[in-house]
Parts: sequence; C-alpha cells; structure tokens
Amino acid sequence: MAEDPGRRWTLEDIVSVPRVISMALSSDGTELAYIERTADIAGNRTLLVLYRLDLASGVRTEIARANAADKLEAIAGKRAWNVLLDLGDGQQLYQIDSGASARLVLASEAKVTVGQAEGNLFTASLLAPHRVGVLAYDWSPDRNWLWYAALRPGPGDPRVQFDSEVTAQKYRRRAPVPAVVELRLRAASGEDTLIATRPVSDRLAFYFAATVRWGQDGLRYFVETTSGTKSDESEAFDLNFASLVSTSAGKMQGLPSVDYLRGPRGGQLASDGTGPSLDLIETGPDGTKHRYGRYGFYVGDPRSAASWRSGDGRRMVLGVRTTSHPRYGLAVVSKAGIRTILNEKSLSRCDFRADLSWGICVEESLSQPPRFVRVEPGSGKITKVLALSARHEAIAPLKITAHQWKNRAGHNATGFIVWPRNYEKGHRYPAILVTHGSDADERFADQDLQWDYPVQAWAERGYFVVLINDPSPRQNPDLMAGYAQWRSGTGPVSPAEVQDSAWIDVVHMLEDVVSQLVHDGLVDGSRVGIAGYSRGSQITNVAVTQSGLFRAASSGDGSFLEPSAWSQVMRSYTAIFGGPPAGPFLENYRRLSPSLRADHACAAVLQQMATPFAGAIDFHMSLRAARVPSQISLYPGETTATDETHLFHIPSNRLAAMRENLAWFDFWLRDVEQTDGSSGGRADHWIGMARDRSAPCPALPVISSDGLP
Amino acid sequence: MAEDPGRRWTLEDIVSVPRVISMALSSDGTELAYIERTADIAGNRTLLVLYRLDLASGVRTEIARANAADKLEAIAGKRAWNVLLDLGDGQQLYQIDSGASARLVLASEAKVTVGQAEGNLFTASLLAPHRVGVLAYDWSPDRNWLWYAALRPGPGDPRVQFDSEVTAQKYRRRAPVPAVVELRLRAASGEDTLIATRPVSDRLAFYFAATVRWGQDGLRYFVETTSGTKSDESEAFDLNFASLVSTSAGKMQGLPSVDYLRGPRGGQLASDGTGPSLDLIETGPDGTKHRYGRYGFYVGDPRSAASWRSGDGRRMVLGVRTTSHPRYGLAVVSKAGIRTILNEKSLSRCDFRADLSWGICVEESLSQPPRFVRVEPGSGKITKVLALSARHEAIAPLKITAHQWKNRAGHNATGFIVWPRNYEKGHRYPAILVTHGSDADERFADQDLQWDYPVQAWAERGYFVVLINDPSPRQNPDLMAGYAQWRSGTGPVSPAEVQDSAWIDVVHMLEDVVSQLVHDGLVDGSRVGIAGYSRGSQITNVAVTQSGLFRAASSGDGSFLEPSAWSQVMRSYTAIFGGPPAGPFLENYRRLSPSLRADHACAAVLQQMATPFAGAIDFHMSLRAARVPSQISLYPGETTATDETHLFHIPSNRLAAMRENLAWFDFWLRDVEQTDGSSGGRADHWIGMARDRSAPCPALPVISSDGLP
Repeated sequence: MAEDPGRRWTLEDIVSVPRVISMALSSDGTELAYIERTADIAGNRTLLVLYRLDLASGVRTEIARANAADKLEAIAGKRAWNVLLDLGDGQQLYQIDSGASARLVLASEAKVTVGQAEGNLFTASLLAPHRVGVLAYDWSPDRNWLWYAALRPGPGDPRVQFDSEVTAQKYRRRAPVPAVVELRLRAASGEDTLIATRPVSDRLAFYFAATVRWGQDGLRYFVETTSGTKSDESEAFDLNFASLVSTSAGKMQGLPSVDYLRGPRGGQLASDGTGPSLDLIETGPDGTKHRYGRYGFYVGDPRSAASWRSGDGRRMVLGVRTTSHPRYGLAVVSKAGIRTILNEKSLSRCDFRADLSWGICVEESLSQPPRFVRVEPGSGKITKVLALSARHEAIAPLKITAHQWKNRAGHNATGFIVWPRNYEKGHRYPAILVTHGSDADERFADQDLQWDYPVQAWAERGYFVVLINDPSPRQNPDLMAGYAQWRSGTGPVSPAEVQDSAWIDVVHMLEDVVSQLVHDGLVDGSRVGIAGYSRGSQITNVAVTQSGLFRAASSGDGSFLEPSAWSQVMRSYTAIFGGPPAGPFLENYRRLSPSLRADHACAAVLQQMATPFAGAIDFHMSLRAARVPSQISLYPGETTATDETHLFHIPSNRLAAMRENLAWFDFWLRDVEQTDGSSGGRADHWIGMARDRSAPCPALPVISSDGLP
Repeated sequence: MAEDPGRRWTLEDIVSVPRVISMALSSDGTELAYIERTADIAGNRTLLVLYRLDLASGVRTEIARANAADKLEAIAGKRAWNVLLDLGDGQQLYQIDSGASARLVLASEAKVTVGQAEGNLFTASLLAPHRVGVLAYDWSPDRNWLWYAALRPGPGDPRVQFDSEVTAQKYRRRAPVPAVVELRLRAASGEDTLIATRPVSDRLAFYFAATVRWGQDGLRYFVETTSGTKSDESEAFDLNFASLVSTSAGKMQGLPSVDYLRGPRGGQLASDGTGPSLDLIETGPDGTKHRYGRYGFYVGDPRSAASWRSGDGRRMVLGVRTTSHPRYGLAVVSKAGIRTILNEKSLSRCDFRADLSWGICVEESLSQPPRFVRVEPGSGKITKVLALSARHEAIAPLKITAHQWKNRAGHNATGFIVWPRNYEKGHRYPAILVTHGSDADERFADQDLQWDYPVQAWAERGYFVVLINDPSPRQNPDLMAGYAQWRSGTGPVSPAEVQDSAWIDVVHMLEDVVSQLVHDGLVDGSRVGIAGYSRGSQITNVAVTQSGLFRAASSGDGSFLEPSAWSQVMRSYTAIFGGPPAGPFLENYRRLSPSLRADHACAAVLQQMATPFAGAIDFHMSLRAARVPSQISLYPGETTATDETHLFHIPSNRLAAMRENLAWFDFWLRDVEQTDGSSGGRADHWIGMARDRSAPCPALPVISSDGLP
C-alpha cells in the first residue's frame, strides 16, 4: 500500500478505519493509554488493540491484542492502568505498569460465552463470541478492596416455561446458556468473598457491577429487582467490611442513575426545549433550576466525549453535539457560565487531567482521519499530537459539504453531501441517500452511520452520496410528541400522527431533498437510491413503499414495523399501530408496514442480514410475490453455531457486503451488468428479475436549471 | 404395582404402554425378534428394547436396550438377525446369533447427531438426539457384499446465503450441522470402498441407502437429484463388483417407488374410489386394470401391517384398514380372489413365514393391550401367543363403543366413545373430544392419537371422551377434491371450498356429534371441551374460533393455518388462502386463521408445545389481547441446546403435560380449583384470567330426551 498523495479510497480502506473506543491519561499526565478497535483483515476478525503513548516522545507501544477489552482506568498516584482484556483465556482483569505487556491481576474461570452464538448470552456486541470471566470491577479509593462481577454458568435444569417466557422465544435462533453474575469482594490480603449472586437479567449487576459506592466502613451496592412487565425497580444493600454481611437499605422505583451529569452547582445538567438552540439547565436536588442560556448544542449525547469535573467541583468539561452542521465539541462549564471549544471538526473522545488544565482528544471529521490532539480548556487551544492512521491520511479527501434542508412541512434536517470524485458542473449524477437516524455528523467513515454502504467507493465511482439525518424531534414540540409516544407506548397522539412524525415526515424530507438536488442540476432524478441499516432500514423500507422516487434500495439487518414483530415489541407497536396486526388495527399496519405495501414498491430492494429476521423475510417474500426485484442475503458467523452481529465484525463479510452493494446499485441505477464476483454469483438472477418484473418506477421529469422540463 | 383385577388407569399406565415398532421371524420360524418402544420412567427417557421370543417355549430374552434401533431383518438360512442399534457409541450394525447379546458387525465413526438439537440433523424423530454412524444397510442375496450408508460430518465453511436459503430459516431454532451420506460397499474380505458421497438432502441416500438392487455382476443404486423447487428427480447408477466403478444408468422424473405393493399378477395394488366400500384394483405395467371387487377396507395405509408375497408370487398377505369401525386386519390375495382376516380388534403389525403358512402379529384394540398372536392365512385362525404387558392386562377395561355419525352436510365420521367409569344413566357428564385426523381406531392407548391427552384418566374421573375422526375424504368426491388441492397446491377448487372441506366441515361434525350426545342425555352441553395435537391442533384451534360450543380446549404443538407460516408452506397456503396474508387474500385468512379470529373465541385455550412455533405464539397473544383465557406451555428438551420432539420422548414431560391437561379441563369444565402441583403453579393465574375474562361461551339450552328444553 503505497502512501501516495492523492490516493483513492478502496473498500479495504473503509474496513480498516481505526476507532478509539476508550482512552485514559496516566495520573501523572505523561502517557495516554487507549484501546483501538480495528480490522485484522488477514486474520479475518475484529481486534481490540491496547496501546500506550508517551506524550513527550510520541512513541507508541502496543501492549496487547485482544478479543475483548473494556473499562480502561488510570490508577491514581502511579503511571499505571487497570483494564479488562480477553487474551485468549476469557475476559479478566489486568494491570499495565511499565513496559509493553499487561499483568494479570484477577482471573475468574471463564466458562460463559457472550455474543451471538448458541449457548451464549446475547448482549449487544460488535465482537465475535468471547468468553467472560470478569464482567466489571471497581477499586475502593484506597485500593484496599477490589469489588468485581464475575460471570458464571447457572443451574442448568430445563423446566416447563409459560406464556411470556415462550412468546419471547418466537424467533429465538440461539438458545442462551443459564448464567449468573457473582458479586465478589477481594481484600488486600487476597481473600475473596462471594457477596451476592444475581441473575444475568439484573442489568445493574451485569453491566455496572451493581454500581457500588464506597464508604468508610463499607460500601453500598444496588441490584435490579424489576419483575415481569412492571416498571423498573431496584434495591440497595449496605455491606460492612468487617462483617461482610449485606443489609437491605431499601427499595426504590427506577434504577440508580449511572449517567448523571452533575453540574458545578451540584445539580443535574441537561439540555431542554425545542428549536435550533436549546436551553442548558442545571436542576438541583431540591428542584430549583439554573439556566445557563440557549446554545446551538446539547449535552448528554452518548456519542460525544464524556464529562469531567475538577477536584473542587467548580468546573466541568462536557462533551456536546451541535444542532446544526452536526459535530462534537466541548463545553467548559463553571458558575461563571459556558465557553465552547468547537471548530469545523469533531472532538469525539477525550480524557482530561484531574485539574482540567489540559487533555487529549480524538479529532476527526468526515474528511479527516482520527488524530490525537491536545486540548486546553482554559484557552481553547488545540494542538496536533499524533495521526492515528497514516494509511488514511494518504487518501485524497473527497469533497464533502454540510447542509441543512427543509421539507414541505417546514421541518429541518441536517446532513452532508459527498461529491463524486472529479465532479463536472452541468453533468447529472446518480445519487444514493444513506440514512441512520442522527448519525450523519463529522466522524470519519464511521461504521455506525455507513455500515457496509461503501460511501467513499461510490463517490470514487461517480455517485453523489447524501448522508442525511432524520428531522430532529428537538426542533418542534409536535415531532417530539410523536417520538416520545413511540418510546413510552402511551400518550394522546394517534397512531397516524406517530407514523407521520417518525417515518412519513422523514420520507417527505428525503423526497424534497432529492427534488432540490435534481432542480439544482446535480442529480439524475431517474437514478436515485437509498440505503440504511437498523433505524435506517425502517426508513429505507418505508421510503420504497411510500414513494416512487427511488429506483434501488439496500436495507440492513432490520425488521421493525413488520406485523411479525408484534409479540416482541408490543409497547412501541401500540403507539405506532394501536394494537396487534388484527381486527381494527390492521388498517394502521397497512398504512405503514412495508411487507403489506409491496404492491406500492417499484425500487429493487436488497436486504443484507446478520440474522434471518422474520420481518425482513416477510418483506422479501411480499416483494417477490408482487414481482418487485428483491434479494435477501444472510451473512454467516464464524461457524454454523454463531451469527454475525448487527454491525458486522468479520472483515470478509464487510467487504463482501460492500461489494454486493456496489454491484446492486451499479446494476439497478446505472444498468451496469456484473461480470466480476461482486454480485456473489447472482448476476444472472438479477437480469431475470429485471426482465420479469412489475412496472419500474416512473421516470421523473428532468427539470432544467431554468425551471422548465 | 399389584396385578389386581379391576385396577384403574393411572397416568403412568398411559406413559408405559409398550409399542412394537419392528418384528421379524427367524428364517426357520422358531423365534421372533422384535423391537419395543417403551418409557423408562426412572431413567426419564424413551427406550428401544430388542427381544427374542422362543415361540415354542414362550421364553422371552432381552437382547439390548438402545437409544435408537432400526431395520431389524432376519438372515436367510440361519436363526439370526441383523439390526441397527445405538448402544451408546452411535447407531451401528449388529448381528444377533444365539444367546442374549448383539454382536457388532460394522461400525462407522458416529460424529453426527440426529434429532431436535443444535448442530444436528432434524429428521422427524420420537427419540432424544442420538449419534448415527450407520444409517442403513443392505446385504447382497449371497451375503458376500454389504452395502451401507454412513453419516459423516460435511465441510463446514459458512458462506453467504440468499433468498430461499434465508426464508427457510425464518423460525429456525437450531442450526443444523453440515453432514453428508457416504454410500459404501464392504466385500467379504472386509475391504471397504467408498462408492459415492451424497448430501443429506438426498432422501434416497439418507433414508433408503440409495435403494440398491442387486444383480449378478454388480448392483444398481438410485440417488435423488431434485434441485430447488422443481419436482422430484433421481438418477440411477450401475456399479460393477469387479471394477467398483459407478456408471450412470439414466435420469428419471420422480423417485423410484419404495412402497410398491406388487400384486399376484405382477401389477401395483391399490384401493380406489369413494364411498363406504372401495375398489381393490391391480394395475399392470401395461396399464391394464384387474378389479378384485369392492371391500370395506383399503390397502396401503402405513399404519396397517405391511405386505408379504409367497416365493412363487402367487399369494400375498396385505395389511388393511377398514372404512367403518376403523381397525386393522389382513387380506389374503391370490388370483382366485380376496379373503379377509378381520375381527373386532386390530392386527397392527406382523411378520409371516416365507411360504405364508403362518405368521405372528400384534393384536390389540382400544380396550385390549397388545398381544402376540399366531395367524394362519389359509384358515384365518388366530391363536394367542403372549401378552406383551401384564401391567396393562391388569387394568379393568373401560367401556368403549364404536360409532359412525353423520353431520348436517350428510358426511360420515367414524369414532369411539369412551364411557366414564361407573356411568349412571340419566346423569349428564362433561365431555372432551379428542381429534387427530384419522387416528381414532382400535389401537391401545396410542400416543399417535391421544398424545398427552389422558383419555383413560379422564374416563376414570367422570368424563365422556369422544375419539372422533375427521370425515374421511374417501367418502365423497367433493371432499376428496378439497383435500387433494390442499396437498397439491393447485386445482379448480376455491380457497373457501378447501377450507370448508378440510376444516369447517370437520367442526360441523364435532358440533353435530355433541348435539346428538346432549340430545341423548349423556353429555352436559355446557361442559364440553376439545383436544388435539398437530392436525388435531388445527381442528381444535379452528373449532374454538368458529363455534361457541366448547368451553375449554387443549391444542398440541401446532401452528398451521396461521399467517406467520406463509413463507414455510406456500404451496398449501396457496390452496387454502389463495396467496400470502396481505392484500386481496387477507379476507381468506380472516375466515379461518385462528389468530385473526380471537374475538370469536370463548373457550379457554391451552397450547402445549415442543417448539415455540410463531403461529402458536400469535394465537396465544391474540387470545390474551381479546381477554380470552389462554396459556402456552413450552416443554423442555434434555438441555437448553435440545428440544422436545413433536411426540414427546421424555416421560416426565408426558406426565406433566397430562397433569396439566387434567388440571386445565377440571378447572374450566368442572370449576375444580387446583390445589396440587398439576397446574404447574399456574392455578392463581387461571383464577385471575377467569375473573378478568371476556364473555364466556353462552350456555346451550339443555334438550331433554323428549326433545323439549
């Protein structure tokens, strides 16, 4: 791979984009440890690589290559870190002191596998199935005590199951293994005591090691006690160090807040309201609200950098996301007010010194690969430290412009246009819209947005690619009401209004953006496609069954909105459709469910799956019954007993899926027949479907720039 | 267990009923070897036990207890047999010579498991998952050559799958393992040669070891070459003993017939026509037909005894099933004509001497446990040889009467009434109808009919139990047309007519039978229930969503007729509904699919499952949404990686399911609250459902015997 200035994007480039998933400055500030998720193409797997970076010399050392890595934390008073790593013997607790290796600190027999496979626990995962010993850990401030959660096989006797236990298995492809979470405490002496055993359904135990809070003589931990379909409940227990006995400290509604953004006044910080600017408010424990002002950003987005408080609690640095030209930055918060650190790129992940004097962040944009930069909150100064991928720095950036569009309802949507390489004015190009909720922002070739849609390869090939966000519900109370009811399941909004807010309005936006681009002379309106996975697959499938605008579509690993999912998502379907797909509610399904509207479709639809979701199968079959060209492709796991994950973790699958997308859109949008292996041997079948199809989408009249057809 | 005359039925009695699944006389006629399927309650598993019975002394010797047993065959010229047995090291080929043990003759490494479990092949099975080495075998007539099929792991690389490969996985709960069938030939020298490797989808290879036909210098074998959704195709190969090279002998449409009933004139025997008597016809290779006459029985039913030809081909003994008072007998066929061997009981399985001078059969009835009897075709004489279960001989037989009923359309149905123990005239009893296609006949407590419906325990408890067959399509050309179109998927009959023939007409029969029993003063019309599994679950679910007659129902391991199954059974659904559950065909689904008609249901519906079928889940959820009392119970396999089988093979599940049925009907039909464990801890939930339910079924007016209400 020559580092030639002006190199073009390849599919391997897309798959190889590194992502920093965790970073921690050493407590003396001399080094940065970080975990990078990357594709090992030769080994055909996703890897997590742990590095330490000497900030003075810029020397980077690889510490470990792991199947899983989590909870990287600096150790106070030392140049050292703790981290959970799976180096082949299950996920365990390690320490990194000096040198180029990690030292095992705590191991728990790892007999339970987590991931999309038979006999596993199915936590949402981007990784291949891996064994877990230590789930989570927490040191006491004086480091005398180590509290941790271990994953263990549970009692295995199968028993008769009833009702909701059965309906939950309607599409269960892999049987989970019985497992439990052991909450344990290890003393400085090494003595290890089992404190409590919790079911894996206890989310506090499984994900947060029971959110322990340390005291002088003991600790308090919280377990989830939610049962059945009631609302969340938890219970607190106090554990005394001397006796190691747990005593209940009371039950409560809800779960103790983990993502509590505590502001300089000791209250909870949040962004509120609707519109292009949002209120930043701190709500005290007594309910009093302090308004900092209205800003073009909001706090609390999990994609933004985290939050840091100075030792005296008077200052904070918060990750924020902007409402227009979406990108990530920082807000420096004190009682005096807010100052933002924001430029045209994103600061998407950071770690700061305890005194908040400076920190290291990942800087990236749609055009710029991730780089470490040094950020000084006081001055707002940003200095480059290290480029994380020479390979990607060598690619000639594509032209990418930020936009805000308005649709016929007066709603705004943000997004970006990726211009075809060597764009020529006056020439019209085919276009593909890529949709995934609100993930179109200044991040570099991020899998969360573009999945296996080869955005950059399309641009190299002469397509416009439009990365377009849903109209944000934050802009308008009515939109917000529709989305809120979708989430909660109940409210005053009718199913039709929920459908309009969360799907139909989005399709109108897509149509109106395309019309604008056609009107502006950029896009050939008869060659427009759409692609999206997950939330994006909802929009894609709805778009092609509501609108005749799209000639080809690619839909990733989705099935939501199909009648078959009712038993799995009753609460949200009650909001969207009013009830089950029968009797009086069937009309509401016919209004929106793609598989019931196949006779409205004229686009050629590809569905790429990690799991053979029933709804996707129903959609495929209804399209074929209506003689609409359609294919469903199922990408395999490592073995017949494992599955791919929602975001594919096997590089060969990512590459094959991207090739399949290249071939699909080249065939259906540009009439290019496939002669290489990209179509996976399906080229003749596509020709047959084209020949035997129902009517294709009617061609749009081409509007010239003077407004006349 | 005391052998007390007049003992009452227990649930353990029902589970312990032995069934002879295979039998073979030694070639010298001195012994009978047979395989009995039985429940090992202590070991909580289903066992196959191989016995040899000395016919002169009556001494029976147990040879082996096996996980699987198949293809028991006598060896010519010896007092010996070959049989496939799994004694713990996978299914292999054994020989039984003298004594009380089986000798291993051929073993093939058994790495592939067959059965309802992850990583297995899912052949229809009544057994726990078991490993298979040797699938099938066939000796050359001179026993110099042993041809056999071995099951082997296949190449395991996962690949991307498309379209129909994906839709087939819509509800796939367990991933099958890749496997192949090796067709092999072992010479007398012991030399073992691989002749061909076939995919497990080749049914000829998998089930019939490629239906080999021996010749002088070699053999001919047949493999299935059907691809995709086209009709069946096969290809013949000739193998020369000297060269061991296979040469194609041509392709053909269809598969070579395995169940070919070849008559005395060298043609194929079959029963034809419609009505209470059917034509017995022999069709020669040139198409000429010889009519033997019209008889009240038919040939070719797989439940009847098999067929035997004398060495000179002039005489045959055929298993038959009667059209009225359904039971099994024998027809002795020669050019001279037909003679039947038929009494009030069944001869359900047999083996005959080569010269057809005599044979041993299993004799049984609804009231009589299975016994071996000696049958002489020449004279028709039947002599008792051995009772197969002293335990069941000791039970005081219930009163069971045979009936034929007519419904409002003039169609007939056969069946039986099991009277409540100590029936008192003038007293009305609750009643439960048990339905499973045409399986109500003179067999003793057969799982094929009564599944886990404790028919005998209900009768002991004071219920009438009506074992009722569907109106036979053989009685009427119109009914036959509807069923034929259901099978083939195409034809002139409308979906409504298919629905009427195969389901609605059956429900009318059930209603009219109940009305008759109420009119006759036997049954309390406000306390009628219905139960059935598989085909019976179709009828049960349709009955409770078409009729208000039933107060409680139990439905076993079904889901057919629900919209969710469309992608899995497109051909038959096209006949029944016209097309997929969308657009113009939805009305046809609403007319019949139980889950779309929950608002018509007033019975309390229990569903007992081996697999969490989507259709059953949909039905349960729609009933609950309509506030109809409903429960779905899922019975577990041995581990979380295995499932129960369609007919349960785990005795504890059978017993628990039967108890659950006792509790369910006692609660909903007789208002008996459950205080023991029979309800599986669900008693309070049932009380809650009864309290919060939608309107129960309206009470029928009680018609007194003089016809006045």
